[in-house]
Amino acid sequence: MDILKIKETCLYVDDLERTKEFYHQKLGFGVIGEVKGRHVFFRAGASVLLCFVAAASKEGGTLPPHFGAGQLHLAFEVEKEQYQPWKQKVLNQGIAIEQEYDWGRGYLSFYFRDPDRHLLEIVMAGMWEK
Amino acid sequence: MDILKIKETCLYVDDLERTKEFYHQKLGFGVIGEVKGRHVFFRAGASVLLCFVAAASKEGGTLPPHFGAGQLHLAFEVEKEQYQPWKQKVLNQGIAIEQEYDWGRGYLSFYFRDPDRHLLEIVMAGMWEK
Repeated sequence: MDILKIKETCLYVDDLERTKEFYHQKLGFGVIGEVKGRHVFFRAGASVLLCFVAAASKEGGTLPPHFGAGQLHLAFEVEKEQYQPWKQKVLNQGIAIEQEYDWGRGYLSFYFRDPDRHLLEIVMAGMWEK
Repeated sequence: MDILKIKETCLYVDDLERTKEFYHQKLGFGVIGEVKGRHVFFRAGASVLLCFVAAASKEGGTLPPHFGAGQLHLAFEVEKEQYQPWKQKVLNQGIAIEQEYDWGRGYLSFYFRDPDRHLLEIVMAGMWEK
């Protein structure tokens, strides 16, 4: 009766084109679904990141309604040896790193913002298993 | 340069004890961190689910601030053969199933709400890979 993982999580955004430019063009996430004015979905490794216009997803329809506001937080996991390359990639895209944190035992993570000010984090694999 | 998966995602909740009763007692998620009045963290398979009181996480401090409102959405993945047992488990806990959806090719998912009306979904593994 185990959960395998969090498969999908949602962010609520103002401008889907701007969101696509950030996650797809800048971070390199593949686009796996898109409905103009409503949502854009990205592959994030074994998970998917769903970005919705809250006014549209709040309407519901075929599926139950959901919506959100604020500056939400989520963390993407990378292999330990991919951490520094990811940091460099983010910096190379002109994205500011808001903070880096040392969690001990060699585990680091860094924080940055998407265009809607959602708080993103890159964490090293194994950090929560230590 | 690949992301492995979404490792952490956050929900913002009104009452941490009520949240713990739901995710821990009812759904059986292990509690892996807790600060009274601020947050409770749960293991969700290979991911972690972070539940915060938004007024507290908005303050920031050691780590950057984040916060949210609304009825957010996330999906937990289970092995295909664990789908029906999970549905039964949710029903057995007296939690209403808001909708079940057939995505084709034998992939089903069902939707339910947590005490803050966040929209949770149980999806079969492989659904996004079909």
